[in-house]
Amino acid sequence: MGFIIFVKINFMNWYQKEIKLEARRRGFHIITSEVVNQIPEIKKIKKGILHIFIKHTSASLIINENISPDVRSDMEKHFNKMVPENMTYYDHNSEGPDDMPAHIKTSVLGNSLTIPITDGDLNLGTWQGIYLCEHRNNGGSRKLVFTIFGEE
Amino acid sequence: MGFIIFVKINFMNWYQKEIKLEARRRGFHIITSEVVNQIPEIKKIKKGILHIFIKHTSASLIINENISPDVRSDMEKHFNKMVPENMTYYDHNSEGPDDMPAHIKTSVLGNSLTIPITDGDLNLGTWQGIYLCEHRNNGGSRKLVFTIFGEE
Amino acid sequence: MGFIIFVKINFMNWYQKEIKLEARRRGFHIITSEVVNQIPEIKKIKKGILHIFIKHTSASLIINENISPDVRSDMEKHFNKMVPENMTYYDHNSEGPDDMPAHIKTSVLGNSLTIPITDGDLNLGTWQGIYLCEHRNNGGSRKLVFTIFGEE
Repeated sequence: MGFIIFVKINFMNWYQKEIKLEARRRGFHIITSEVVNQIPEIKKIKKGILHIFIKHTSASLIINENISPDVRSDMEKHFNKMVPENMTYYDHNSEGPDDMPAHIKTSVLGNSLTIPITDGDLNLGTWQGIYLCEHRNNGGSRKLVFTIFGEE
Repeated sequence: MGFIIFVKINFMNWYQKEIKLEARRRGFHIITSEVVNQIPEIKKIKKGILHIFIKHTSASLIINENISPDVRSDMEKHFNKMVPENMTYYDHNSEGPDDMPAHIKTSVLGNSLTIPITDGDLNLGTWQGIYLCEHRNNGGSRKLVFTIFGEE
Repeated sequence: MGFIIFVKINFMNWYQKEIKLEARRRGFHIITSEVVNQIPEIKKIKKGILHIFIKHTSASLIINENISPDVRSDMEKHFNKMVPENMTYYDHNSEGPDDMPAHIKTSVLGNSLTIPITDGDLNLGTWQGIYLCEHRNNGGSRKLVFTIFGEE
C-alpha cells in the first residue's frame, strides 16, 4: 500500500522585537550597523522585508548618504531653517522651543522604514545608510520595533 | 500500521478592506479610534503589520502626537506657510488656490502608513495617534484601504 | 481503510526583482505603466502588497496626480524653492549645487512605496500615479527593487 501527499508551502517567517537606542544629541545619526547587529534573523530570509518603526513623535527614520558627515550636518541645518523654532504662530510650546518643530520634522521625514531583504542581507544601495533623526535637544533613549517577514 | 506527518507551518493571514471616512474640514484630524474600530481582525494577529493607504492625491496620513489639539492646529499653520497658496509659479490652478498646495503637502507627508501589530494590538508609542490630513477646503469623503497581514 | 487530512494553508507568495529605469532629466516623471509592465506577477495576487524601493539617495518615489503635466512641473518648481541650491550653510558641495538639495528632497519625499494589491491589480485611486522624482541634473539610470507578497 502506498500513497503520496503533495503539499506546496512557501515557508513564511515572522520575527519581531523591540529595542532601545541609546540617547543621542539632536541631529542626524547613522545607525545602520546598530540595526543590523540587532537582527541576525534576516540571514534566514531569502526574499522579504525589514520594517522599522520608531515609537515617538519627535524623532524620525530616513535612508540617506552613508559616508559624508557633511550630509548629516547640512540636513540638520536645512531642517532647522525649513521648520524654525519660536514661530509666533506656534501654540504648542509647553516643552520648549524645540517641541513643536520636532513634531513637524517627524512627519515631514517619517517614522517608519521598509527595506527589502534579499538572500539574507538588507538590499540597500551602495551609498544608502539608515539614519535616526533626533529632533529634540534632550530626546533620551528611543524605542524601535523591528518586524522581519519573508520567505526562507 | 502507523505513520506520522510533521508539517511546520506558520499560519499567515491576510485581511483587506476598503472604507470611507466621513468628510472632514481642512486640517489635521486624529482617526485612531475610527481606524481600530474598523479592523477587529488585528486581534487575531500575533506578529504582523497594518498597512493603511489613502486613495487620493490631496489628503495624507501621518502618525503624530495624540493629545494636544495645538499640535494639529500648529501643523496646519506651518504647512500652509511651507506650501503657500497662490504662488505665482503654480500653473495647476483649475480647482482653486488649495489645489496645487494639497498635492504638494500630500507628497511631503505621504499617503500610506505601516504600523506593527503585536499580540493583537497596534504597537504604537504612548503618544502616537493616526492622523488624516485633509488638505482641501472641501475634500469630501476619503477612501482608505486597510491591508492586515501577519502570523496568528 | 480510509483517512482524511485537513490542512488549512493560506498560500503566500513572494516575488522580488531588481530593475533599472532609463535615465531621465531632472524633474517629476510618471512611471506607473513602466512599473506595472515589469511585474506581471501581481496578477496572481488576490490580496497583497507591492513594495518599491529606490536604491539611491538623490532620487525619490511618490504617488501623486496622474493626468496634469502642470502638477509635475509645479512640484519641481516648488521643491526647488523649498530646498534651494547654493545655500551658504551647505558644506556638502563636492558634486555640484544640485548635490545636497537632492539628498534633502529625497528624504522629504521618501525612497519607498507600499501599494495594496487587490484581485490582481494595484489598488490605486482614480487619480493616483507612481512618480520617479529625479533630483539630480544628471542622475543616470536608477535601480528599483520590487517586492511583491500576498495571498494567491
